[in-house]
Amino acid sequence: MAQTPYKQLEQEWKRLHAFRGAMAVLRWDAAVMMPRGSADVRGEQLAALETEYHTLVTSPKITRLLDRAQASTAGLEDWHIANLREMRRQRDFAIATPVALVSRLAKAASKAEMKWLAARETGKFEDFAPHLEEVVHLVRDKAQLLGQSRNLSPYDALVDEFSPGLTSAEIDAMFKALGRRLPGLIREVVAQQERRPLLPITGKFSASKQRALSVELMKAVGFPFDRGRLDESEHPFTEGVPGDVRVTTRFDTSEPFQGFLGALHETGHAMYDIGLPAEFADQPVGRDRGMALEESQSLLMEMIVCRSRPFVRYLKPLLEKHFGVSGPEWSEENLYAHLTRVRRGPIRVDADELTYSLHIQLRYEIENELLSGKLAVRNLRDAWNAAMEQRLGFKPQNDLEGVLQDVHWAVGSFGYFPSYALGAVMAAQFYEALRAAVPDVDDQIGRGEFAGLMGWLRENVHAQGARVSPQELLKQATGKPLSAAASLRYLEAKYLHGEPVVGSAAA
Amino acid sequence: MAQTPYKQLEQEWKRLHAFRGAMAVLRWDAAVMMPRGSADVRGEQLAALETEYHTLVTSPKITRLLDRAQASTAGLEDWHIANLREMRRQRDFAIATPVALVSRLAKAASKAEMKWLAARETGKFEDFAPHLEEVVHLVRDKAQLLGQSRNLSPYDALVDEFSPGLTSAEIDAMFKALGRRLPGLIREVVAQQERRPLLPITGKFSASKQRALSVELMKAVGFPFDRGRLDESEHPFTEGVPGDVRVTTRFDTSEPFQGFLGALHETGHAMYDIGLPAEFADQPVGRDRGMALEESQSLLMEMIVCRSRPFVRYLKPLLEKHFGVSGPEWSEENLYAHLTRVRRGPIRVDADELTYSLHIQLRYEIENELLSGKLAVRNLRDAWNAAMEQRLGFKPQNDLEGVLQDVHWAVGSFGYFPSYALGAVMAAQFYEALRAAVPDVDDQIGRGEFAGLMGWLRENVHAQGARVSPQELLKQATGKPLSAAASLRYLEAKYLHGEPVVGSAAA
Repeated sequence: MAQTPYKQLEQEWKRLHAFRGAMAVLRWDAAVMMPRGSADVRGEQLAALETEYHTLVTSPKITRLLDRAQASTAGLEDWHIANLREMRRQRDFAIATPVALVSRLAKAASKAEMKWLAARETGKFEDFAPHLEEVVHLVRDKAQLLGQSRNLSPYDALVDEFSPGLTSAEIDAMFKALGRRLPGLIREVVAQQERRPLLPITGKFSASKQRALSVELMKAVGFPFDRGRLDESEHPFTEGVPGDVRVTTRFDTSEPFQGFLGALHETGHAMYDIGLPAEFADQPVGRDRGMALEESQSLLMEMIVCRSRPFVRYLKPLLEKHFGVSGPEWSEENLYAHLTRVRRGPIRVDADELTYSLHIQLRYEIENELLSGKLAVRNLRDAWNAAMEQRLGFKPQNDLEGVLQDVHWAVGSFGYFPSYALGAVMAAQFYEALRAAVPDVDDQIGRGEFAGLMGWLRENVHAQGARVSPQELLKQATGKPLSAAASLRYLEAKYLHGEPVVGSAAA
Repeated sequence: MAQTPYKQLEQEWKRLHAFRGAMAVLRWDAAVMMPRGSADVRGEQLAALETEYHTLVTSPKITRLLDRAQASTAGLEDWHIANLREMRRQRDFAIATPVALVSRLAKAASKAEMKWLAARETGKFEDFAPHLEEVVHLVRDKAQLLGQSRNLSPYDALVDEFSPGLTSAEIDAMFKALGRRLPGLIREVVAQQERRPLLPITGKFSASKQRALSVELMKAVGFPFDRGRLDESEHPFTEGVPGDVRVTTRFDTSEPFQGFLGALHETGHAMYDIGLPAEFADQPVGRDRGMALEESQSLLMEMIVCRSRPFVRYLKPLLEKHFGVSGPEWSEENLYAHLTRVRRGPIRVDADELTYSLHIQLRYEIENELLSGKLAVRNLRDAWNAAMEQRLGFKPQNDLEGVLQDVHWAVGSFGYFPSYALGAVMAAQFYEALRAAVPDVDDQIGRGEFAGLMGWLRENVHAQGARVSPQELLKQATGKPLSAAASLRYLEAKYLHGEPVVGSAAA
């Protein structure tokens, strides 16, 4: 019995999904379990699967089936039509980036990453620069090809790969809106916080205790440990496919917060992946709607939920139980003050909610200039240090706390950074709508109950998969277009007035 | 520049090797790390990769290249010609077993394995029998097809898949030779051992201490922890490819021996894999020469080396160090007596060296009858119990210690069991030759040095890859054809006279 072209395409993507899942396990294993000396063997395995994936997606058979299916969509539902659109999108991206270029870029990126790691030892940007230059060169080629294919500017084509449909115009507008208010807000908040000194939190917090705390928190949020894991790795990440989602974090025994914050940040990603529409689990339309939305879910959890007064109310007795601590420095007030401290610092990953988007803006502007050729790699350090001085008011002491701090460019991830700032803005916008729809969400969180939070997110974000664009998803969920307004309202209320805005009808 | 057909084939198999390695990681993860609820997702991933592997091996391109390469082998070395032979062999096996049959068998086996696990709970063979019958039916089809393709009897075709080139004729001859001496030998040894009671060894041996002991022993043997791992799983196994070989064991805290014995048994497999010819690491000729030889390496390590007086001399202070034990029950004499105790028991995996091959012979004869149709699955339990009574002198008390004890048949592994007995016989034959070539090997082992042992095995077994047949490999390494004689000499000397035969010129 002949299947429709659409059904045949679903079968093809079921297989591609299995390949994706296999690659996810191989990457997770490489970061968490693999012996150090096995990197070459693993590289061959991943390259073979990636090449095969690329060959399958770009096969004439898929193109033929897509043409036929899209020519007559009678009888297909919205989800199916959206699925065809996403299939076409994947196929177009793959066709636009020939295997030879992908493979050269992968090799150059692998080399540059090693040189970046080595430069992190010597502290010298010069040791890394020539290898970054090679990567920039190849990413530029890729951006050209993708841009032509997608009818976008080269940089927008790269953004589009990570966060479908989002453009420089929207990113510029966001940074402009944030830029009007943030510098002044940061000054006011820093001055205010300086008048309220923190009680220092010191001690030794064993990895096993931090792990037990993280597991208890993740379970409360709803992470399914029968279809997922928590492990440790150099940098926290989430990997896998729905049905087997794995998160990692890092436990620093001199500090009690970063371990569980990392775990819950990643749990934000994981819950998104787990909540994707099960009916389309192995289809393109059943995937997350890109990195900006992914970051919105992780930042909503880590920044908005975990650094809120209700959460601290729930957290305090857990800290006492797991770490056996007590005393004035463990009061709700002091814990909250630690979790919301604003500091102008050189390192992005250590930055607080207020200064974070300045770090991103700096990278966004610089990577645009690198790709357009306006800025040469050899002048990158000077440009970085100058921008840091202008935006955050000081010059990095060395390259480690300057231009060598992120791995993204080394591995060819240009166009990724804006996702972080977009995600933060979206998170605030979601949370404002969520508070209006679930008025007692704060009380629930204060009791360690996350059903209201997760229920709303699942229905309005996770279960939407890739059915519509990120902008449309945001609008349907919140009733408003993408805007930095909710984020600024949230930051002002929290950091200046010490209270969240509840279900704001403002704006 | 056009590559020769042979070079093109090498490229094709390099890719296939990467797929194999990826599947190995997925299987390892499934047994060691995967969350319980992710089995379906993993099943899809493995099935997709296996189907792709099958498609690649059976592609017209491979057949065409093989025909061309084998038509003119001028300029190729022995290793290359052997590589072509092994490529052809893989291709022929894949062609002979259509994807549809492989897939039906995989599904039936997966179902039967679940039902076997369930029957292990109820203890009732009846719950499992219908599902086993389905598997037997499909394996019979497969054996027919393979037999026609390989010009072998159906059963021999199954044996050949696991241990290339070995046949029922050789297995029959082996069991006949063993059968003439073993029953009497077992009687004598049991009677002799009954006159020397053991001092019981009791206590609590934590998993972490057993792990530390196992790691120290594996390091001494030469296991490279920068390209391999030791983990825990329900049943010990070895998985991976050279460059990333992972072994598992199981730690029973009420008993100090099985944990490290399992680890070293698997290390025997691992060292074989690690010692395979590096130049052909991603080629068929660079693989191990089948399961009988694999078992020879694991049994040589676990049974011959680890249950020897010199090894016990090395082991005793390590047990004292890791477990903090002392006293007369930890004397070399008592430890050795524990490790070489002979008991007629119902369970194969608990059997000693002397009774082990009787367990295998029983399975070998029964699986032949099941496949030929002489024995119906519904009569399997009776046949099993009768054979057990005849061979080992007692009837199993229930199906758990009878016909339900092994998973092999449930998962369709017919023709595998003989590998264990062949491996034991080969191990003794290798060790006899090794002792003659490395006269101080026992002294070395007594000092915890394994260079002499592993050097000989690497040169004469591991580094041979799949260049020649198992029989030829054995003959080149030991100067003698496959025979049970060395095994019987070894067992008599060790169990009856308390001494190994050194570098025997006997026979």
